[in-house]
Formats: sequence, C-alpha cells, structure tokens
Amino acid sequence: MALTTPRLPPGTVEWLPKEQLAFQKFLRTIQNTYESFGFVPVETPVFELKDVLLTKEGGETEKQVYLVQSTGGRAQGHEPDLAMRFDLTVPLARYVAQHEHELNFPFRRYQMQKVYRGERPQRGREREFYQCDIDVIGKDELALGYDAELPAIIYRIFTALGLPRFQIQINNRKLLKGLLEKFGLDTPERQTAALHEIDRLDKIGAEKVKAALLEPEVGLTEDTAIALLQLMNSVRSNEETLGSLAGLNNAPALLTEGLGELRKVYDGVRALGVPDEAVRLNLSTVRGLDYYTGTVYETLLVDDPALGSICSGGRYENLAGHYTKSKLPGVGISIGATRLFGQLLERGIIKAERASRTDVLIVQLDTALLPDYFALASELRSAGLNVEVYVDAHKMGKQLKYADRAGIPYAVIMGSDEKAKGTITLKHLLKTEQEELPLSQLTARLQALGVGLP
Amino acid sequence: MALTTPRLPPGTVEWLPKEQLAFQKFLRTIQNTYESFGFVPVETPVFELKDVLLTKEGGETEKQVYLVQSTGGRAQGHEPDLAMRFDLTVPLARYVAQHEHELNFPFRRYQMQKVYRGERPQRGREREFYQCDIDVIGKDELALGYDAELPAIIYRIFTALGLPRFQIQINNRKLLKGLLEKFGLDTPERQTAALHEIDRLDKIGAEKVKAALLEPEVGLTEDTAIALLQLMNSVRSNEETLGSLAGLNNAPALLTEGLGELRKVYDGVRALGVPDEAVRLNLSTVRGLDYYTGTVYETLLVDDPALGSICSGGRYENLAGHYTKSKLPGVGISIGATRLFGQLLERGIIKAERASRTDVLIVQLDTALLPDYFALASELRSAGLNVEVYVDAHKMGKQLKYADRAGIPYAVIMGSDEKAKGTITLKHLLKTEQEELPLSQLTARLQALGVGLP
Repeated sequence: MALTTPRLPPGTVEWLPKEQLAFQKFLRTIQNTYESFGFVPVETPVFELKDVLLTKEGGETEKQVYLVQSTGGRAQGHEPDLAMRFDLTVPLARYVAQHEHELNFPFRRYQMQKVYRGERPQRGREREFYQCDIDVIGKDELALGYDAELPAIIYRIFTALGLPRFQIQINNRKLLKGLLEKFGLDTPERQTAALHEIDRLDKIGAEKVKAALLEPEVGLTEDTAIALLQLMNSVRSNEETLGSLAGLNNAPALLTEGLGELRKVYDGVRALGVPDEAVRLNLSTVRGLDYYTGTVYETLLVDDPALGSICSGGRYENLAGHYTKSKLPGVGISIGATRLFGQLLERGIIKAERASRTDVLIVQLDTALLPDYFALASELRSAGLNVEVYVDAHKMGKQLKYADRAGIPYAVIMGSDEKAKGTITLKHLLKTEQEELPLSQLTARLQALGVGLP
Repeated sequence: MALTTPRLPPGTVEWLPKEQLAFQKFLRTIQNTYESFGFVPVETPVFELKDVLLTKEGGETEKQVYLVQSTGGRAQGHEPDLAMRFDLTVPLARYVAQHEHELNFPFRRYQMQKVYRGERPQRGREREFYQCDIDVIGKDELALGYDAELPAIIYRIFTALGLPRFQIQINNRKLLKGLLEKFGLDTPERQTAALHEIDRLDKIGAEKVKAALLEPEVGLTEDTAIALLQLMNSVRSNEETLGSLAGLNNAPALLTEGLGELRKVYDGVRALGVPDEAVRLNLSTVRGLDYYTGTVYETLLVDDPALGSICSGGRYENLAGHYTKSKLPGVGISIGATRLFGQLLERGIIKAERASRTDVLIVQLDTALLPDYFALASELRSAGLNVEVYVDAHKMGKQLKYADRAGIPYAVIMGSDEKAKGTITLKHLLKTEQEELPLSQLTARLQALGVGLP
C-alpha cells in the first residue's frame, strides 16, 4: 500500500506530550484566575451559521473566514451555510442575545477556545489558535468600576505564570478624542489620521510621529504637535500623567469626562492591589479604531516590547446590536494563548518539564506477579496517586528508561522474594536512591514524600 | 438596522453556564481518571489536510466529512484541501506516525476534543460532539495485560460520576470467530452474516436471532443454532461462561487462543479491583466488523439498556498502516461525552447545581467604599477564594437576587458604620442566616466554613 506522509496543515500547531502538559497548566492558571473574579465558562460551537456569523458584509475579515460544508452538500452543489468563528466576540454577542433572558447580569463570562483565520501562514500568524477571553456584559448599563478589575486580572495571571517585568498600559478613548479636539482636530477624518500615527508612537518614536502629524491628513502646526506629543510622553509617573491633563485650560467636555474615567479606573486598579510599576497610563495607546469607546488596555513585556501586546481589550458601548435591540455595554480582554505560550516557551520563561503526570511506575519484574502489580496500582490510585504498571515483559533497563523519558519520579520494584517477605523496593528515580520498605507502608511513605499532592 | 436572529446551527449543542460548569466537572473526572492510569494528553488541530485525513476512498464516512475552505480560496475557485476530524482515531494515527521517534512507547495517550460529522441532524446524532478517547499504542508489540486496564478505567470513571448499575461487557473477537468455525461457519461471508445477527441478540432476543441464523446467508441447522445461542446465554456468571467454553470438544485453535486471552483479561480486571457484578463476559458482543481483532468492550446501564453502549472500544492490530511501515498495535476506548452528559443530565443522574464557582459576593452598600470592597476582594482572592464585587450601584435586593441566581453561598456586607467599627456582616445565603464579625477574621471564618477548598 502506498503510504501517505503524516503532516499537519500549515499554520496549525500541536505539541508533544511534555509541551502539551505545560500548555494545560498555562491554560489552567488563566482559567483559575478568571474564576477567582467570578467569571463563568461559555463554550460555543466551532462553526456558526454563515449569515449569523457574517452580519457585516465584505471587508478584510470576511476574506479570512473558513467556510464549512459536508462532502455530501458539496457534491450536490449547495452553497456552504456554515462558517468557523474567527474570534470569540461575535459568538459571545450571538450567545448573549440568544440566551438573554436566561443569563444573570452583569454577565461575567470567560471563553477559552480556538479561533480560525484563513490566513496565508507565516510566523506568528496561525490559522488555528486559542483565545482566552473575558467580558463583563451589563444590561442597559455597566458601572465603570468593572474596567478596574481587568488590569487586576491580567496582573494576577501574569504574576502566577512567572512572567518577568510586564506593564499594563491603560488609556481612555474619550480622553484621547477630547485631547485631539483640544488641539484643534475636530473632524472624524483628521482624528482618525492622527490616531493612526499616535498608535505608532512607541514603535517609531516621537520624531517620526511629529513629522506625520504635520502632514495635511492631520495638519497640526509644529507647536501643537510638540505640545500634544509632550502630553503623551510616557516616561512619567502615572500621577504626573494625570496631573498634566488635569492642569489643561479650556478642556473639551469629552477630555474632562475621559480623564475622570481614567482617574477612577487607575484608583480602582491600585485598590485591587496592583503595584504601580505594573501599570502605565499611556495616552498613546489606541487599540483599534472602531470598536472601543472608553477604557483600552494593552500589555507589554518591559524587556521585550517587540513581542507586541500580550493581552489587550477595552470598553465598548453595545455588544450585540446585530442580534438584539437590548443595549448591552461591556468591557473585556483577550489573551492569544497559543502564540503567547509558544513565545514564553521559546524564551525559557515557561518550561516544559515532564512528559507525564504519573507519580509511580510499577516495574514488571516477574510476569507471574502481574495481578499483584495491578492490585497494588489500584490501591495507590485509590489513595489519589497517578500510577502506571509497565505491562510489557521488557527488561528492567528498558522499563526504567521509559520512566526516565516520562519524568516519572518513583518506581516500585517487587519480585517474588520481596513478595514472600511482604516488602518492596522504592526507587527515587530523580536522585538514583532506593529504599526497601514493607508493602503495607508504601502509600504512607509516598504521601510523606509529597507524591500526589496538588 | 435589520436584526439577524441569533441561533445555533442544527446538530450543535451549547450550554448555559450552570450546565457548562457541570459539564466541565464531568470532563475533569474523566481526565483525572485517565491521568491516574498514566495517560498523557494530546490535542490535534480541528482540521487535517484532506488527503491525510481521507486515506480511504469513498464509503459512508466520507460523505459525512466536513470540508473547510477560506472565503478567499473559494472565491478563487480552488478545491478545499482541509477536512475536519470525524473521530480521534485517524488524528491519533497521524500523530503517532508523524512523531514516532519522539514518543515514549508504550504510548498511553488521552484526547478529549470535539469531532465533526456532516449528518442530517436528528436526536442523538450531533454534528459536533466531544469524544474522550484513550489508547495504549505499542511499538511492534503490546502485552495483553493492557486490555485488562481499560475496564478498570471505565469502572473508576463511572463510579466517580455516580452512575447507577452499569455493566462492562467484554468479549474477544478471536474467540468469537473460533466459535463460529467450531459450528461449521468457515467462510468470511457466512461468519460476517452470523456476526451481524449475533450482534443483535441483546436487542431482539434469542428466538429472532435463531430464525435468522437458519437463513441461507448463515445456514446453521436448528441444532447448531440452538447450541451456539446456548453458549451465548448471558444470564450466567462469568466463571460459568468461561467454563462452558473450556469444556468444548475439538475446539479450533482460534477459539482456544481467544478463550485464553479472555481469561487473562478477566483475571486482570478482577485484580484491578473491579467488582464482578460490573463485568459481564458477553459472547454476543461484536463491536464493529472491521477494526477490532481481539478484546472488545461495550458498557451498558443495567436499568436503561436502551441508551446503548456508553463506552466502547477494543484491541486492534495496527494503528497507522496508512502512514508508516512500523507496526503499532493498540487497545483503546472512547466515551461520547456530549451525548452521555446530556443523557445523564436528562435522567437526573448528573445535576447542574450552581451557575457560578464564586464563593463570596461583596455587596456594594456604599459607592464611596468601592476601593475598600476591591481591597477586601483582593485579600480573599490571595487566600484562594473566588470572589466577586458587585460593582453596579444597584439596590441591595437586586444584588442579593444576583447572588441567589448564581448560587453564590456567601455575601459580605460592609457599610460606613461597619467600616468605622472594623466589622462586616457575613450572610449565609443558602441558609438565610447572618453573623457580624471583625473584618480581620473574615478570611479565617470563611476557611473554617470550608469555602474555597477543592
């Protein structure tokens, strides 16, 4: 028979067991933190009806959507009527609108699933990747205080994951828009052109941004451009940033409103125990031009800003306007987990340490004793341990090599002599030590060694 | 703007948070048990390259496969080159063949992911559903003893899930084939026709099966049909079943080999602590005609056999013959988790009890104290509790109704009077009791109440 070469579709990722176990732990840390703030899980189908998913016609996004059709449907010449989710926001909107009367508002939901983009594969642009999203959705209204919780969640997750210095950048879109008004940019076109440039401030530097702001699309004068960029100087304390804005004369109403919001969010974040060095009020953080209407967030690794934002989000006015007349304001963040995990692994910040969660391998020394090995394994499992019996009658060296490759910390050896004496040998595989002890004491001994504890 | 009705594709399932939490717990129980036997996790992409997934041409299966194509690729008239997995066995075969030299054999893997079938939707036939599979894969060989572990795993899972009386049916395909030879059925056609009828024994009864066995496709005489069905009588102890087979004269070699295997598997299952009433050696269990070559399993609820098998599997000779020349024998089982969970929920065997995992709601009595509520929440979270602050300035009744709907067991109330005194009121929401205590003792008090423990 001709063999088919086993290979993955481009732009997809799968891990060997060792990395998969580390990835599970990574996701569990995110999930536990989400739950510690009261978020509840939602899972939606991988595909939606095409007309439900793609309520907006055309655009770059639609080109990247994967359509789904059964072989039978295709053979009959039907049009595909299913499409795979490209983010978790549209499914959330559909879910909340569909189940609105059964949900408990303010609705705090988390969703950790894969999303799909029909992109030309390239490094860092996967076609399938995990997103880990949380959003709080209000009915008609949602207090500003919720915006303060999200940076606290980010802080707890990245601290628990052991990330080195990171900074959660916080801005407010009303403040930003008010600031542009203050500097004479009063048409949507000029504002959009200015935001586009400001967004690049941390990447290309103040000089280049200033030059761009003088171009006719924005049309600032040299003086106003300098004054604007001076306000956006991010090498200041957060209190200095807030103070410099509070001191502005003739502030437009939107600026005053946005500044008040940013002040409250910042105070809330601090009350939630986030240290000041983990937060940066950054007036040049834009985070997308269309969607967000108030607070916006990005998160950078201080010593590795080229990685880009590893957790972003913001406040929006209405989640599900395509599906319901109810007004559903929300605030949320998203972690691109596949990409982030891969980067942290590559940098050695996360380590994949063991290829198995097995605590004890029971070595098969004597085939006739297999029932005894099974009974012992069963007893240890009932005490909460993860136990494997090596069932193939291989040489002991091969069995111990298996344990070594899997990173199993303990092996139990019992031959017919030991069985007659009622003892076993416990090998500490990570230390190449061993001890003989009564079989009846094995469970207690392993527990004393801390085996099987969470 | 015209609204789009939010709705799911037919044949897909999603849960409200209460059911989703119960489903998570259900999956976690399965996963923990798999890990307690040393299995390691694998996740594969939802789609594979079409030529890799569909190595076999045509057939009923292929009609049910979902093809995937980006909108861009479709607009350009390309053929789809991606297809969604329809089970977890083909991705496992591809994975093991692809990573053969990096894996640790015997390779014990579990995989808990959704699979996709382009079926006409009907009750119990979902287009998207979870499968929870385990397989042990050997290189060149795999000892029979592994076959004994799988019923022990099934037993532990279903016991942990609180299922009522269930029976793991075990048979052996060599034994079954030898038995047919013994009764004169020596062509593959007659054997296949006979197996087809025998498979229905538990559903349609011995009389109807006997009549079918007399038809020319099988062509047994009345006497041999009666003798065969008598051996398959399942209202016997397991030892009686084994004894009746051991007593047969002129047994074909295949029968003797299969009987020896079944004996060893049964002894192993018992050594692993599975009570005899949870196991039934059932000579009429066939479990698919093509794939399995030795031990086969099905699992029935004793008081609800109409549910069909809730966990099935068996031994096969070679996992990945389409992808590699290596011989990779294996044994595995699969739980159709979406369907089983739905059925257990419907029958009240599994209960969805809480719509949240939050331990404590901090009520907002006074907006000015929000920073205090945040600080308190942060302190409780650091002690391992799941805590929500109600951030909207709603009436207390509305806040407590929110906690009630979510099933949150405790609420903390602190107004400015309490703050001045350094106390809080702890409401036991499930018992409508409350107590006032010093703020400094709250964490210890909640821990004493068992809150936040796993």
